[in-house]
Amino acid sequence: MHAYRSHTCAALTAANVGETVRLSGWVHRVRDHGGVLFIDLRDHFGVTQVLCDGDSAAFAELEKVRSEWCIRIDGNVKARDPELVNPKLPTGEIEVYVRELEVLGAADELPLMVFGDQEYPEETRLRYRYLDLRREAMQQNMTLRSDVVASMRKRMWDQGFREYQTPIITASSPEGARDFLVPSRLHPGKFYALPQAPQLFKQLIMVSGFDKYFQIAPCFRDEDPRADRSPTDFYQLDLEMSFVEQQDVFDTIQPVLTGVFEEFGGGRKVDQEWPQISYKDAALWYGTDKPDLRNPIKMQVVSDHFRGSGFAIFAKLLEQEGTEIRAIPAPTGGSRKFCDRMNAFAQKEGLPGMGYIFWRERKEHEEEVERLLSESKQINDALEALSGLQGLENELASLNSRIQRVFEQAKELISTSDAHLGFIKDLQDRVADIPDVEEAIWLTDYILELLQIEAAGPLAKNIGPERTEAIRQQLGLGVGDAAFFLGGKPKAFEKVAGKARDAIGDELNLTEKDRFAFAWIVDFPIYEQDEETGAIDFEHNPFSMPQGGLEALNGNPLDVRGYQYDLACNGYELVSGAIRNHKPEIMLKAFELAGYGEDEVKSRFGALFSAFHYGAPPHGGCAAGIDRIVMLLADEANIREVMMFPMNQRAEDLMMDAPSDPTSDQLMELGLRIIPQD
Amino acid sequence: MHAYRSHTCAALTAANVGETVRLSGWVHRVRDHGGVLFIDLRDHFGVTQVLCDGDSAAFAELEKVRSEWCIRIDGNVKARDPELVNPKLPTGEIEVYVRELEVLGAADELPLMVFGDQEYPEETRLRYRYLDLRREAMQQNMTLRSDVVASMRKRMWDQGFREYQTPIITASSPEGARDFLVPSRLHPGKFYALPQAPQLFKQLIMVSGFDKYFQIAPCFRDEDPRADRSPTDFYQLDLEMSFVEQQDVFDTIQPVLTGVFEEFGGGRKVDQEWPQISYKDAALWYGTDKPDLRNPIKMQVVSDHFRGSGFAIFAKLLEQEGTEIRAIPAPTGGSRKFCDRMNAFAQKEGLPGMGYIFWRERKEHEEEVERLLSESKQINDALEALSGLQGLENELASLNSRIQRVFEQAKELISTSDAHLGFIKDLQDRVADIPDVEEAIWLTDYILELLQIEAAGPLAKNIGPERTEAIRQQLGLGVGDAAFFLGGKPKAFEKVAGKARDAIGDELNLTEKDRFAFAWIVDFPIYEQDEETGAIDFEHNPFSMPQGGLEALNGNPLDVRGYQYDLACNGYELVSGAIRNHKPEIMLKAFELAGYGEDEVKSRFGALFSAFHYGAPPHGGCAAGIDRIVMLLADEANIREVMMFPMNQRAEDLMMDAPSDPTSDQLMELGLRIIPQD
Repeated sequence: MHAYRSHTCAALTAANVGETVRLSGWVHRVRDHGGVLFIDLRDHFGVTQVLCDGDSAAFAELEKVRSEWCIRIDGNVKARDPELVNPKLPTGEIEVYVRELEVLGAADELPLMVFGDQEYPEETRLRYRYLDLRREAMQQNMTLRSDVVASMRKRMWDQGFREYQTPIITASSPEGARDFLVPSRLHPGKFYALPQAPQLFKQLIMVSGFDKYFQIAPCFRDEDPRADRSPTDFYQLDLEMSFVEQQDVFDTIQPVLTGVFEEFGGGRKVDQEWPQISYKDAALWYGTDKPDLRNPIKMQVVSDHFRGSGFAIFAKLLEQEGTEIRAIPAPTGGSRKFCDRMNAFAQKEGLPGMGYIFWRERKEHEEEVERLLSESKQINDALEALSGLQGLENELASLNSRIQRVFEQAKELISTSDAHLGFIKDLQDRVADIPDVEEAIWLTDYILELLQIEAAGPLAKNIGPERTEAIRQQLGLGVGDAAFFLGGKPKAFEKVAGKARDAIGDELNLTEKDRFAFAWIVDFPIYEQDEETGAIDFEHNPFSMPQGGLEALNGNPLDVRGYQYDLACNGYELVSGAIRNHKPEIMLKAFELAGYGEDEVKSRFGALFSAFHYGAPPHGGCAAGIDRIVMLLADEANIREVMMFPMNQRAEDLMMDAPSDPTSDQLMELGLRIIPQD
Repeated sequence: MHAYRSHTCAALTAANVGETVRLSGWVHRVRDHGGVLFIDLRDHFGVTQVLCDGDSAAFAELEKVRSEWCIRIDGNVKARDPELVNPKLPTGEIEVYVRELEVLGAADELPLMVFGDQEYPEETRLRYRYLDLRREAMQQNMTLRSDVVASMRKRMWDQGFREYQTPIITASSPEGARDFLVPSRLHPGKFYALPQAPQLFKQLIMVSGFDKYFQIAPCFRDEDPRADRSPTDFYQLDLEMSFVEQQDVFDTIQPVLTGVFEEFGGGRKVDQEWPQISYKDAALWYGTDKPDLRNPIKMQVVSDHFRGSGFAIFAKLLEQEGTEIRAIPAPTGGSRKFCDRMNAFAQKEGLPGMGYIFWRERKEHEEEVERLLSESKQINDALEALSGLQGLENELASLNSRIQRVFEQAKELISTSDAHLGFIKDLQDRVADIPDVEEAIWLTDYILELLQIEAAGPLAKNIGPERTEAIRQQLGLGVGDAAFFLGGKPKAFEKVAGKARDAIGDELNLTEKDRFAFAWIVDFPIYEQDEETGAIDFEHNPFSMPQGGLEALNGNPLDVRGYQYDLACNGYELVSGAIRNHKPEIMLKAFELAGYGEDEVKSRFGALFSAFHYGAPPHGGCAAGIDRIVMLLADEANIREVMMFPMNQRAEDLMMDAPSDPTSDQLMELGLRIIPQD
């Protein structure tokens, strides 16, 4: 018999009853049922119940074992009594009666329990990662990650790609983040850098004629930590292709990702249609270039309805150049309580607030006025009852202000309603003048609809019923819906608008949960302008081919779009890529516009620039963030849950004790001295 | 039509004749056949002949293109004339008549030609790697490497292993080589290290309960460069398993490697039997722990034949403790010329020389004496003819010494022969006294054999025919064979003996060329003793389980063998591994014997030592050197031929310009100062 096991802890079934078996694993749980010891013996594959009583020679030894001891047992497979069969366990039909025991590895008192759902501080989990990883959820996350990567590889190979490894100890890479440096011993005072991404290498691989490259590539960026980012390294599915256009890259990566999400998404819906949305539209519609399309809300420009309107704040704002008013429609959000909560959300995000309008049935409004009047009466009665009592000044003031607010709400309701009725009256007056019968019927129907609905909120009152109704029509909303409004220069509020859209989608349950929704964001601008200095710099990746080529670069740089794209999924950026600028003259011009001279291009990207002078093919590609994909699939919000041995947020490995002090010999060899820190 | 290609340059056949196609690729070769331009258009997949004459609108443009320009052409597929069909090319039946041309990327004058077999200095090849990689051999090596790695992965998955990625920015690892360090910005003055191997992590993965791990793992060692080693990083197929013994690891990796060698070995024979040879035997038999078993030569100890013999050098040597005489049998090496060459080889390797004996037919000897005598006569005649001439002192001295040597050889031959005949005579005398008929017949046969054979060489003469014959019997040699002899303390000559064995095998064509021969080298000693200080230190990996466990460690440390193994193939170490020492008490004792206290174990291997206190499973594994495997398969002697972007021997990347000077901002952020070098 094998020294450690004849079967794994997931293998035995009723078919093995009567056999003598050998199992190895960890003591998951020990229960003592009056002289009979039951142990759940666990290995990577599963759990088998083993037991022992005083009749077994192993009993005395087995009594000593504790949770997480690693043991080997020999025993006989027995069928469980029918009422004790556990249908949830693959091994639930049997148990193993222990005849012999060997302790393979005892355990000290545990800083962290593997069995059960107890929560532990992250520091404890990371310091004792080898225990934390034994927990079921972590075993699943790690195997999921491994399976996802293998599936990606397979899908890439099936599409004719080959994996080529690129250097890890290399030169500084121009990805815009901070490099990790590696001092050279053979060349003291000089440093290598770890690649922020294999960007330069994969482009050089294309120039080398390899046509289709991919790599599950480690990337290194010395970044300040975030929950969804490792402070040191992360993995990309990196790919590059020669002789392709943007759509070719899309057609390559889409089946890989839909395949992976379908394979590992646990039945969640995987969108097959991936819309292509321009960077500009994404900003307008979703307030972000990584929109969550599970949320159906699409923002719209509604500036015209506010221009010269009675809502002075927006009307004045619109007199400034570059300003806009945008609406976030909120279907089913039509309650004052919800609207106020969202307004408060915007204030928390640093805006003065979000104006809103919501629509309800007119009868509700009458009831509401009734309710408000009755509430004011109650408060009034209370005030009378309290009159003359001392030491209640605060309470009285509060009740007074409450009664004020109630009155104002009632007044606003009545006035909005009156205006609304006036608007309807005007429409009614026009019906008689309409010569076309169909049009008259349509207007009558519309009037009937308007009689059922009523807009509420201070904004509606200020701009009047006609504009309010025009907004409702534009946004396609109805009774029970709401809309929020943000104004100013789009850059200043777009991000908050995007967050508000997310919050609205979540709160109103508009955002489908069990679904992966993808969108290509395309047509990124190549350049951006610094608001203060007016300087032009690259908005994104300096290696993208500008749409329109050299000619486009001779116009206004801020108008130039690149063949550059991101893939958004459920609010995350999963993929980023571009068709590259492979023409040295366009490359020079593109850098010149961003203020880089030829010398700087040569010194910073010399290899690529030089390679482009020896027959460079058109090429492009993308990189997909593996950690993030696994996070989405595992439904985890923290990257550390899908990494085997992550750093903590301070970029420390608590288990391995890194970083640590170098020896003076090491420093000497590297020709380095540490500057004492204050 | 696609912007760049309707087909690859390997796709078109006679079936496409008449079609309009679009191809993109590089101008491999241009030939101008009197107004008709022929271009071999090359992409990653193959070559297609395209042509153009003055009738085509593209002619004027096509005339301008040069080698390695990247172009796109549109054209018509035509059948080649039967006599122009090239059966070696998949596209050899057709050619494409060019109608339209687009230059995708022009090329400057080439520093390195892609077409043809011209050799270039390595510096040129590395600086313009993107051109070098376009050459057919490099394309093949890179795709081979990629395919080998993919095949390994598939084979590991098929065996139930999962790939788990381990950290690259981490803590110093105890592999015995030099770490690459990475200064921390968040913790100035502290350093991370790049892993020399994922050894600690894979063991921790086992303690974490994952059972079967593998990884195509980058390993980083700051080593002084060698041809078969990258000065920065290299790749391993790294694997580890729980609940296994040594044989389980063998049974796992053997099918993976035989599979890969069969798949990619190009029909070369792949041994299915992998002998297990102890470290001790390997040193004795092959003079190395990475023997080339394609070479059938197996060395033997022949001390007894020299003890007290007439060969004073060896006889005296053997009086010292720890000395041995070993023989390298050299079948078919039985000529003085060959023996002298091997003797000179040993002298070049720093030994005083290798004694030898060779065996030949007696009639050859007689002829040889004849030949020598005739040679001496010729020289004598020449000397006489020259007598009296001036200014020929050197020539005369040389001829004189030559005549001396010839005489000595003849004398030695005669004397050896006489002794041999004497020895045979003695045997003949004994035949009559043998009562057993069968034995007498056997001896008679043996005498007949001896009459046909004769040992030659000074050594044979010195030790006499009986010992010489006993050696021949032990080594199983015969007419036409030779044997070489080395003496002293084995450590002092083993390495040269191994090299001599290689040289003999090569020179005599004993070493089969088209074959991969594997051997497990097992039972490595855990410790070695410093000859000068007498101190005991780890011989190999400090994490291996000693055979015999704790008990064995209480005896003589130098006798302790480990469950530690290497795989040798054709003279290279391809795999190294061990069953690990997972018991903290044995680990402490093992380190104590090597002079490391508990505190040092805790501080240097704290994570592992601590993990072993929480239920560690028995585990073991190995790592296979991928670069070396690909080198063997590609039949390359230099690791840089199988790496996409290697460093040069001075650990510089000439293309990327690494390492380079850091900026002062970078140094400031890292809290480092460079010590000026003298």
